[in-house]
Amino acid sequence: MPLKLFGYFRSSAAYRVRIALELKSLDWHSESIHLTKDGGMQFGSPYQSINPSSLVPTLQDHDTYLTQSLAIIEYLEEKYRKPALLPRDPISRSWVRSIALSIACDVHPLNNLRVLKYLKNTLEVSDSARSDWYAHWISKTFAGIETMLAQQPYTGSFCYGDKPTLADICLVPQIFNANRFECDLTSFPTILRINNNCMALKAFQAAHPTNQPDSE
Amino acid sequence: MPLKLFGYFRSSAAYRVRIALELKSLDWHSESIHLTKDGGMQFGSPYQSINPSSLVPTLQDHDTYLTQSLAIIEYLEEKYRKPALLPRDPISRSWVRSIALSIACDVHPLNNLRVLKYLKNTLEVSDSARSDWYAHWISKTFAGIETMLAQQPYTGSFCYGDKPTLADICLVPQIFNANRFECDLTSFPTILRINNNCMALKAFQAAHPTNQPDSE
Repeated sequence: MPLKLFGYFRSSAAYRVRIALELKSLDWHSESIHLTKDGGMQFGSPYQSINPSSLVPTLQDHDTYLTQSLAIIEYLEEKYRKPALLPRDPISRSWVRSIALSIACDVHPLNNLRVLKYLKNTLEVSDSARSDWYAHWISKTFAGIETMLAQQPYTGSFCYGDKPTLADICLVPQIFNANRFECDLTSFPTILRINNNCMALKAFQAAHPTNQPDSE
Repeated sequence: MPLKLFGYFRSSAAYRVRIALELKSLDWHSESIHLTKDGGMQFGSPYQSINPSSLVPTLQDHDTYLTQSLAIIEYLEEKYRKPALLPRDPISRSWVRSIALSIACDVHPLNNLRVLKYLKNTLEVSDSARSDWYAHWISKTFAGIETMLAQQPYTGSFCYGDKPTLADICLVPQIFNANRFECDLTSFPTILRINNNCMALKAFQAAHPTNQPDSE
């Protein structure tokens, strides 16, 4: 029975899980949870019964439903060990996780759809001030990550050495998202170099939003 | 050589790491990075050299500096295995991590100091609208977590069974923070019951913000 990913082509969090599934060459298929049509399928009762947080993605493995992209990827890492998406020693693992969490905790939550909607609809923030908000958090977080990557001897073709890890899995979707919002990323050459190396790999291409069945 | 935690008494993320250190009975001491005095010590060059993201906490273990609270706790879990802060089987581990990440990704990033400052100073949002913003994200996320905890057979005295895990470590500081902002949490009885059980333990008490040397 293949794994089933409830996601949305443009969701960064779903994109992370797609990359992990592809890197591990797992048998999976997707079910689209459209985040905007008809008020958002994530708020409907069928989806809420498997994910009470009304957020994508959710991974179904037989009769188990797993939520939160990083928790899902750690599960895949523990169950399907090769290729490994985390290094072996605890210090390196922590370093890779810290890059991943910088994206997942410090920038993505501030710039996702529901927050941008709240800024517009509830706080009546102008389009231009919303763009500034978006660019501000990208710039702050990417500056920290760029310094970490540029300083660390761990850094190679990818965030850690010469194979993609959980760090690259989180970084690439955030860059896709930042490009959609036309953020200037020229101050982050290490990040851009790593992104290019990732996008040369079939797994990252297959997971790309434009290559999903629900892409618009 | 004891572990050193660079943190701030009121930071939820530092509070999480303190609980983990206490639960594992590790030898540690703290160094305060005051987040508001003199424009914020986290932006000064001494701290930036060990944490380029200018966020707390950072854990020093000999000559290694680790950042991001959840990456630090996973490191502690891998290096100092007992008592375990994650269950054994991959599905349960993923579930515990999903509760932890619901806090760390879905609510805490939206309600921390730098975001509330941006709302006030840059977007000129009123105090009352900022309180609504704070309560909105607490309410959305806690509703999802309450349902997950109330429905799951895993749930016991704590989020998972009868011993504290990474999930409780993230939940308790967020409740402390929500109480500071006077959020109404009466709709979340399972969360409140678990919080009470945690606060009866010495480790959670020792890690509490009011019991830190830099508490004001």
